[in-house]
Amino acid sequence: MIIGIGVDIVDVARFEQSLARTPSMKSRLFTDRECVDHKGIALTPVRLAARFAVKEALAKALGAPGDLAWHDCEVLTDDSGAPLIVASGTVEQACMFRDVTRWHVSMSHDAGMAIAYVIAERGEDDDPAAA
Amino acid sequence: MIIGIGVDIVDVARFEQSLARTPSMKSRLFTDRECVDHKGIALTPVRLAARFAVKEALAKALGAPGDLAWHDCEVLTDDSGAPLIVASGTVEQACMFRDVTRWHVSMSHDAGMAIAYVIAERGEDDDPAAA
Amino acid sequence: MIIGIGVDIVDVARFEQSLARTPSMKSRLFTDRECVDHKGIALTPVRLAARFAVKEALAKALGAPGDLAWHDCEVLTDDSGAPLIVASGTVEQACMFRDVTRWHVSMSHDAGMAIAYVIAERGEDDDPAAA
Repeated sequence: MIIGIGVDIVDVARFEQSLARTPSMKSRLFTDRECVDHKGIALTPVRLAARFAVKEALAKALGAPGDLAWHDCEVLTDDSGAPLIVASGTVEQACMFRDVTRWHVSMSHDAGMAIAYVIAERGEDDDPAAA
Repeated sequence: MIIGIGVDIVDVARFEQSLARTPSMKSRLFTDRECVDHKGIALTPVRLAARFAVKEALAKALGAPGDLAWHDCEVLTDDSGAPLIVASGTVEQACMFRDVTRWHVSMSHDAGMAIAYVIAERGEDDDPAAA
Repeated sequence: MIIGIGVDIVDVARFEQSLARTPSMKSRLFTDRECVDHKGIALTPVRLAARFAVKEALAKALGAPGDLAWHDCEVLTDDSGAPLIVASGTVEQACMFRDVTRWHVSMSHDAGMAIAYVIAERGEDDDPAAA
C-alpha cells in the first residue's frame, strides 16, 4: 500500500550558486557522511543536488514539508551504488505516524537538471511498530 | 495494487507562449477554482504548467489520453498546499472502469521545467463501487 | 508490493550527438523493432532518447545496472501508443530472481529533455514462477 509519493527537480547551476554564496548551507543540508559516496569520494555539486532533490521529494511524500530536519533524512548509497534513505528523529517519527515501513528512491541527472522520485510504502507483512 | 502510472514534463516558456497566443486555452484546460491556490491567490504560469503536467500524467496512468475532458480532472491543493486530484465525469468513469480508488500525485518545477508524477492505485480495503 | 523504482532524465541533444558520432550505438542499444513505433514509423531521436531513458530506469529498478544486456529490455508501444516493456534473457532472469511480475512505465519529453519512470511490482495474485 502506497502512503505517499514525491518528485523534485533541481536546477544544478542555481543549487551550486547557492552553496557558493552561503557556505554554511552545505553542512546545514547534509551530514558529513552524505557528502561522500560509498567509496569515500567527495560528491560533486551535481550529485549533492540529486541528494537534495531526494530530501525534498521525501518531504512531499510524507506530506510534512515544514516539520522535518534536513539531517534526519540522510541520502546515502549502498555498496552497489544504489541510493538509500536513512531516517532518524523527525523523519522517523513522521514515518511511524503515517505507517511508512519502506522507502523506494531513485535519482538521475543530465543537462544541468537533477531529479528524484520517492515512494513511501507500507508493506503488507511489515510490522508498523518496527518502522 | 498499482493500476497505472504517468509522468509528464512541460517546457514552461512554451506553455506560457501558448496561453498568451490562445487566451481561450486557459479556461479550456482549467476550471475557475484550478486557477487559484488554496489561499485564493491566482496561479503564476509556472504553477499552471505544473497542473497541466498532472492532467497529462493522469491521462497516461488511465491509458485513455484522448477520451478525457480537461475539466474532469481538477488539480487543486489541500490546506497544507499538497496537490489533490478531483475527478468527475469522463475521468471518474475511467477510474470506475479500471477500479482506480486512489490517486497519488506530486509535482515540481525549476529551471523553466515543470514535472508531474501520478500513480493510480486500487487499495486493498477500498470498495471499487465507491471509487 | 513494490520491488523497485527507477527514474532517468536524458539530454536529447547530447544523446543525438552520441548516436551521430558512433553509428553502431543505435543497434547496440535498440533492437530493430524498437526503432519504429506501433505504426511502423521510424522513431525520431527524441523518442529514441525516451526509450533509452526507460532502459536506464528499469536497470535502476532492478538494482542491477551492469548485469543487463540492452536488447533484453525492449521498449515498445501497444496499439494505443502506450509504452510496453518486453523482457528477455538477462532482464527476464533478474525479474525472476527478484519476483517482479509486473512493470509500470511512463515517459515524456519536452524542451530537449526526455524522462522515464518505471515501477517493478509483484502482484498479489501473480504466480512468481510465471514472471
